[in-house]
Amino acid sequence: MNTIIEQICYQAKTAARRLAVVSTMDKNTALQRIADQIWVERQLILAANQADLEEAQNSGLSPALLDRLMLNEKRLSHIVADLRHVLDLPDPVGEAFEPETLPNGLRVHKQRVPLGVLAVIYEARPNVTVDVTGLALKSGNCAILRGGSETIRSNRALVGAVRRGLENPGIKIPIEAVQLVSDTDRHLVYDLLQMEQFIDMVIPRGGAGLHDFCRKNSRIPVITGGIGICHLFVDETADLPRALEVIRNAKIQRPTVCNALDTVLVHPAVAPAFIPELVKRLSADGVTFRADPRSFQLLEGQESEAVRPAGSQDFDTEWLSLVLGLRIVDGLEEAIEHISAHSTAHSDGILTANTEHAARFVAAVDSAAVYVNASTRFTDGSQLGLGAEVAISTQRLHARGPMGLRELTTYKWVVEGDYHIRA
Amino acid sequence: MNTIIEQICYQAKTAARRLAVVSTMDKNTALQRIADQIWVERQLILAANQADLEEAQNSGLSPALLDRLMLNEKRLSHIVADLRHVLDLPDPVGEAFEPETLPNGLRVHKQRVPLGVLAVIYEARPNVTVDVTGLALKSGNCAILRGGSETIRSNRALVGAVRRGLENPGIKIPIEAVQLVSDTDRHLVYDLLQMEQFIDMVIPRGGAGLHDFCRKNSRIPVITGGIGICHLFVDETADLPRALEVIRNAKIQRPTVCNALDTVLVHPAVAPAFIPELVKRLSADGVTFRADPRSFQLLEGQESEAVRPAGSQDFDTEWLSLVLGLRIVDGLEEAIEHISAHSTAHSDGILTANTEHAARFVAAVDSAAVYVNASTRFTDGSQLGLGAEVAISTQRLHARGPMGLRELTTYKWVVEGDYHIRA
Repeated sequence: MNTIIEQICYQAKTAARRLAVVSTMDKNTALQRIADQIWVERQLILAANQADLEEAQNSGLSPALLDRLMLNEKRLSHIVADLRHVLDLPDPVGEAFEPETLPNGLRVHKQRVPLGVLAVIYEARPNVTVDVTGLALKSGNCAILRGGSETIRSNRALVGAVRRGLENPGIKIPIEAVQLVSDTDRHLVYDLLQMEQFIDMVIPRGGAGLHDFCRKNSRIPVITGGIGICHLFVDETADLPRALEVIRNAKIQRPTVCNALDTVLVHPAVAPAFIPELVKRLSADGVTFRADPRSFQLLEGQESEAVRPAGSQDFDTEWLSLVLGLRIVDGLEEAIEHISAHSTAHSDGILTANTEHAARFVAAVDSAAVYVNASTRFTDGSQLGLGAEVAISTQRLHARGPMGLRELTTYKWVVEGDYHIRA
Repeated sequence: MNTIIEQICYQAKTAARRLAVVSTMDKNTALQRIADQIWVERQLILAANQADLEEAQNSGLSPALLDRLMLNEKRLSHIVADLRHVLDLPDPVGEAFEPETLPNGLRVHKQRVPLGVLAVIYEARPNVTVDVTGLALKSGNCAILRGGSETIRSNRALVGAVRRGLENPGIKIPIEAVQLVSDTDRHLVYDLLQMEQFIDMVIPRGGAGLHDFCRKNSRIPVITGGIGICHLFVDETADLPRALEVIRNAKIQRPTVCNALDTVLVHPAVAPAFIPELVKRLSADGVTFRADPRSFQLLEGQESEAVRPAGSQDFDTEWLSLVLGLRIVDGLEEAIEHISAHSTAHSDGILTANTEHAARFVAAVDSAAVYVNASTRFTDGSQLGLGAEVAISTQRLHARGPMGLRELTTYKWVVEGDYHIRA
């Protein structure tokens, strides 16, 4: 086992005990100092980022990845503003809930406590370094950060600023609370995943390969998610013009993210009126379609460049681009069946005026977020009222859907008695 | 991959979709039929258990294990009564919570849904087969049961009765909802742990070796727990005679279970008065002590047979027997330090009249259950008001401490709008 990893983990675990009892005010003061320090060191950070960018360009990174990697003063100011926003979020730690006095007089309640040490494994985007730091510290957790090698200089500069922020006099959060794995050896990820005595939760943020690697190799609980094959079903009673706007929003507002729409299912009664209109409108936005045989037939003669017959894998693909699957289903039950077979249980919805159909859809579709008459793009911590998010979980344990500060905590049972004994 | 395991898992997953929408009344009717059927088949079940017992005796199983394995009509009647008790527990499925209308008018709430498919891996005790079946079905989950080879005939007979109960006309739970891995090949446990596409949660119920095997090999989230090195700290203000009764209860009421007491920590101010009395009283109950040097010295001349100097591992041992560790600590903070270093974060408590000390202890000790003036033996689903328990979790994710029906569920976000789009 690599001793660097063991040292980092041991330091984080030790810091976690101290951090767990730091007050909300002291945590906010620390976050304030960190935000200040990042801004003070912005030239250093941008220079490091520039060096990352140059190397990434030379090694032929895709324009999309280069864009994720790139920082400038404006982007950095947004990162700092997001961090300051965490100050305003309520601190979940210490919350007492489900109080009860048992028949024998024992007083029982649950009390919210930090998870302890979070390890976050991510790629490219240096903003994750600051986002995770803010959410982890505010919820009383230590963070072990493992970014990609392409952004290592940026991350070193950012974590340097974070830790110098924590070195200010009077700051109660130990600097060991934020740890960067600054060696980019890939085997270190495997080593991290074995550190069950020190790390309480692993959050991979990246593609399916990273998630699968973590599930397979981790002895620590892993939050998997962030992969969405999302559906909207246009029921026969949908308000078609407005349904079209919802679909357009879900598809094109930000096509590269997990809650963007992948497949539209359409009731046959409205398909002839709706599908040609949908294709006409969205192809003007650059959307191309993968149509099942029935909808393809319906489109005969119309915009042949934008529409292709769906291939065998097309309904099992997360597009992350301006491609949209299109299928006519025989009705509500077939829509539910299609979603059950092809969805990743991220975000799926129905567009309908029929409340019974809506209720049946909500009961039968077991996705992290189920929508009635709204865009799938709302599956997001900020949009759904959490203030921020550390991940979107598509697993079933612990937390499902957007995870905010509260989802970075657990609870303990507190039991108070009068020298009670068990009979 | 073993096709038996794949078949079992596929059948369970398919049944889970149907079971998830079965009403509370229909689930209760099914449980009633199962309870009836077990009682109808009691001669068959007891005969199968007798055959297991005979083979276990011949193969030299310990008396403790033989006792766990053994069923008789009285024990079976208790098992059936426990199952009927599950009828009375509230059904968590469908509960809507945290409703909110967002500023943009979106109506959001969470809705409780079953986890899906639970795999439970356990040893000896055939009562687990029925307990888990009842709790899984009531919470809308399918169960894959993998008992030990020593109890395979009993488990086949019990699951046979369960499934014949489900075959009754009008029963809405599919019989595939309860699956027994009836091949005792140990490699099948490994195979089960790979079935992430079918199984949602793994609950090992057994020793540390089984838990470790599951954490290491599972691609599925594992609930670990059930291992308790439990402490009580006798503060200087404790009511000593009553503290002694709490310690006695925590140690001797059922010494073989995880919430039984392992170590007593004593404040030096009360040690001379308390420790000799404790040893005198509990040694009469057959308790033997492993004393640290200071408490050993205090006991010089007293009952030397019952007291031995503590060895280097004694404070890191879950005794599961009538042995009790004994240590004088310098006060509250050293007690907290000792617990932090040696506890398994299961159940730890303080005995004190000082409310500030109690509050400091509760804040600083991060165990699944933290006690003030009560026996650690209360860490139990029935005792803490859950009605029943499927496991006691000592991990931090999803659920901590006793897990009842609600802890066998997750939630989905339901978002209802008026053709809302994201700006």
